[in-house]
Amino acid sequence: MANTSNRQIVIAARPNGKAQLSDFNIVEQAIPSPGDGEVLFRNLLISMDPYQRSLMGNASSELPPIDIGQPMSGPTVAVVEQSRNANFAVGDHVVSWSGWQEYGLSDGSDLQKIDPEAAPLSTALGVLGHTGLTAWLGVSKFLNPKPGGTFVVTAAAGSVGSVAAQMAKLRGHRVIGIAGGPEKVRYLKDDLGLDGAVDYKATGFAEQLARALPDGLDTLFDNVGGYMFEALMPYFNHHARIVICGTIAQYDFPNAPDGPNRLPELLKSFLYRFIEIRGFALPDHLGSYPEFLAEVGPLVSQDKIKYSEEFVDGFENIPDAFLRLFDGRNRGKLIARVG
Amino acid sequence: MANTSNRQIVIAARPNGKAQLSDFNIVEQAIPSPGDGEVLFRNLLISMDPYQRSLMGNASSELPPIDIGQPMSGPTVAVVEQSRNANFAVGDHVVSWSGWQEYGLSDGSDLQKIDPEAAPLSTALGVLGHTGLTAWLGVSKFLNPKPGGTFVVTAAAGSVGSVAAQMAKLRGHRVIGIAGGPEKVRYLKDDLGLDGAVDYKATGFAEQLARALPDGLDTLFDNVGGYMFEALMPYFNHHARIVICGTIAQYDFPNAPDGPNRLPELLKSFLYRFIEIRGFALPDHLGSYPEFLAEVGPLVSQDKIKYSEEFVDGFENIPDAFLRLFDGRNRGKLIARVG
Repeated sequence: MANTSNRQIVIAARPNGKAQLSDFNIVEQAIPSPGDGEVLFRNLLISMDPYQRSLMGNASSELPPIDIGQPMSGPTVAVVEQSRNANFAVGDHVVSWSGWQEYGLSDGSDLQKIDPEAAPLSTALGVLGHTGLTAWLGVSKFLNPKPGGTFVVTAAAGSVGSVAAQMAKLRGHRVIGIAGGPEKVRYLKDDLGLDGAVDYKATGFAEQLARALPDGLDTLFDNVGGYMFEALMPYFNHHARIVICGTIAQYDFPNAPDGPNRLPELLKSFLYRFIEIRGFALPDHLGSYPEFLAEVGPLVSQDKIKYSEEFVDGFENIPDAFLRLFDGRNRGKLIARVG
Repeated sequence: MANTSNRQIVIAARPNGKAQLSDFNIVEQAIPSPGDGEVLFRNLLISMDPYQRSLMGNASSELPPIDIGQPMSGPTVAVVEQSRNANFAVGDHVVSWSGWQEYGLSDGSDLQKIDPEAAPLSTALGVLGHTGLTAWLGVSKFLNPKPGGTFVVTAAAGSVGSVAAQMAKLRGHRVIGIAGGPEKVRYLKDDLGLDGAVDYKATGFAEQLARALPDGLDTLFDNVGGYMFEALMPYFNHHARIVICGTIAQYDFPNAPDGPNRLPELLKSFLYRFIEIRGFALPDHLGSYPEFLAEVGPLVSQDKIKYSEEFVDGFENIPDAFLRLFDGRNRGKLIARVG
């Protein structure tokens, strides 16, 4: 642990379509020293999330890309090593947004203390962190229709999708998850207890979808966008409600794809099927975090909401692990153990 | 007035793209006699509305088309000629949904009595009828964001759009109307007092739009869809709210147009700009009619909401007048005087 330098994984190039290993570099910096009011912390766990592709540039995103040569940003779990801030003591555990590097410096304003006794540290990056909060906001604040209808979740084995699907199930909906591959389908049915699961990678995806949605869909929590959203459009029921929480199928493609142009058909479905659809901004709703934790924390400790984590060991393995998110090789929350 | 037959305008053929005169026929039926509990009424004013194109079939609509040989459905203002229903007396004025015919028969359940002294009879088909209610619902129930932002209305010189635009103005928004031709633009600016108006038929439409929306748009009341919606997409601000109230640009085109496919771009804007968009069903909100009338009735009699009506005389001229709705030749509410 007696590091003498702070390794960082930086953006080396803007991806041309799919991100690849050569778009990252590992560089070494001196470990910074905390100034007055500052805290130096060492990252123990580093989160990898699909939206980070958007931050690399050349993506179907409106987020400003990270400068070339700068480390990837994102949440981590860290331990305080030096403190010149009265609110933090050496040994405190915190969630930071210091991204893909071994050490971080902060004035404390973006740090959130966590209790390592209350839940495994890793949950602060997943089911009890920003991914769980995202799922909870979508289901409870923006969808929350009357129980009993058909509720579809795309990327349902993912870190956000799996929480959303289980919350919808607990609220009394008939929940259908969509994911890629037989193992994920088994997980959704057997481990999470969903009412149905559809494998988008299987031949006969369209027929499977038709069988899973005999009465259409009333609610959609979409993490995928693109071709997946288009495949679901014919199933939108009257008064359907939809949250767009991610567009992972679109991240690699900055330009509008060839036609036909399905946008007029979508407007038509809004008009004639009285549909409501929205995105939302997590930062607008951080004030709901205590309410979220009060509801979801006990559900997680009672095992009523299950979560899946996949760990990668070693800082230098982060880029390769991150790329797995885009070909469906991972399941659940992907976290690097670096400390 | 001593008609011996009931003329009807019926659907003669499903339009191939744009509707034309040959898609209609005028037929004569015997004037029906009211049975026990029924009312015979004679239509005085017949409404023509863009959505009626959807009822002719071969349209980008999900409404079931009217059977070939049956009269076009829609609202009328009528006077009761014979009554075997205790709730209606000969001479009563009513709004009916008997459509494009000279006489109608009803058990009274779909008739709404109106007071010819309270407001001109024609307003019951327009500003104080289903078109005004539609505008009011969109603006006051589903958009209603904080005042001060930029509020765009498409087809703003139309019967729904002109009421929506004036209600938005009364609520303190900066209102930009889009319409076709210099006379409509003048009407929007000078007569309705909007903050700006853009002529989509003028060369340089894109540049005009850019000048009218220097700060983007925060609210959109869209009656047009298609190319117009796509032209507005780049101006959607963060947290924009949108109501889809019509897709008149799409009615004639049943199939998805050629690409590029703008749907992924739209999903992306929902996600990254936190946009909320919806359609709504008028029949779900008829219970709001008294609230609407209490608010909008006085505004109309005080001339704070202006309305424009265009009258066509003669039953046989309805089809030709109806077709004007689709090339922008009309302004305001289009009504046939037939009694």
